[in-house]
Amino acid sequence: MFDRFTALDAVGPYEVLSRLPGATVRFLGPAPGPVRTDTRMLTVEAQGAWEDASGADVILVPGGFGTRALLEDQRICRALRAAHERSRWTTSVCTGSLLLAAAGILDGVDAATHWAARDLLGSLGARAVAERVVERGKILTAAGVSAGIDMALLLASRIAGDEAAQAIQLSIEYDPDPPFNTGSLAKAPSHIVDRVRRAEAAQSA
Amino acid sequence: MFDRFTALDAVGPYEVLSRLPGATVRFLGPAPGPVRTDTRMLTVEAQGAWEDASGADVILVPGGFGTRALLEDQRICRALRAAHERSRWTTSVCTGSLLLAAAGILDGVDAATHWAARDLLGSLGARAVAERVVERGKILTAAGVSAGIDMALLLASRIAGDEAAQAIQLSIEYDPDPPFNTGSLAKAPSHIVDRVRRAEAAQSA
Repeated sequence: MFDRFTALDAVGPYEVLSRLPGATVRFLGPAPGPVRTDTRMLTVEAQGAWEDASGADVILVPGGFGTRALLEDQRICRALRAAHERSRWTTSVCTGSLLLAAAGILDGVDAATHWAARDLLGSLGARAVAERVVERGKILTAAGVSAGIDMALLLASRIAGDEAAQAIQLSIEYDPDPPFNTGSLAKAPSHIVDRVRRAEAAQSA
Repeated sequence: MFDRFTALDAVGPYEVLSRLPGATVRFLGPAPGPVRTDTRMLTVEAQGAWEDASGADVILVPGGFGTRALLEDQRICRALRAAHERSRWTTSVCTGSLLLAAAGILDGVDAATHWAARDLLGSLGARAVAERVVERGKILTAAGVSAGIDMALLLASRIAGDEAAQAIQLSIEYDPDPPFNTGSLAKAPSHIVDRVRRAEAAQSA
């Protein structure tokens, strides 16, 4: 985590992966202590520092507007490279892939990100693809925010088998039924896309 | 929130509702300060106490195994009744509806809950129904964990109109694509249901 991360990017996958038999999930930040989300309305406790990710089986980098301020941060890039070197799975949700790319982990690698950040991801050396979940070797990347839940269920199946993942899906009653059909760039009408672009431009200004 | 709540029950709807123009979301607990989730792996800061919910336009009660210890807690039941009296919308996710029922808010009212808690919800005076989101007057209840996202999008449309909700759905890229089709009691094969029931029995023991 980092200042101005997006909560659901982290909490969706946590809710899935913490239910794997024997799993321990740790939330890490710049330092142990409180980390605030992009909305400034939610504070989550980091139990350790970014460097503590080294040795973890799975690392997961959430997104959020706070990623932009970290793209040239040598400390987080070094911590991500060290963790990636030893990880079994290196993963991201939403604009978390920008940080993996900034750390040099996605050079020439197909990766997902939030639909509004695909150009930026490409400019950082990754090959941005318009898919919800992208698996390339041990690297799993997810599209915007809620896509982390789908990614985590796939990862759960890779780690513990399909039946373990299916049981987790039932335990969180993940039988999605959104009231609208506007959840992707391809499906949303252009006036809705414009509305989101304006809101995001205002937030990043 | 309360000790042993389920994080995604709260954070899914927060991620939707905090994006409503002008919205302020506050996380409340037994007292201001840290609240730990059911897995004991995540700590969230409460910004105020349960009683501070009185006067909120929307109240949302998450679920989790911690609900069981609060069903006869007069303090939380009183705080919920006071908040419900003045709210525009009273809502719950997963077993959060058990607390609304314990507070007397769901007497004879159709309501959703986690599929494994329907009998318990019925024993508390509500009419448990096997739907993902149930709207009855100003009361909105959602089924297990991830159903809170669907409920919050519906609520966003009720509060700010369909286009505002559709824009939020696109901003969180909620175009779900679960890897399996086992997210409900009706869809999961019986050996998966049994596996979840065993795991939940072990957790509540």
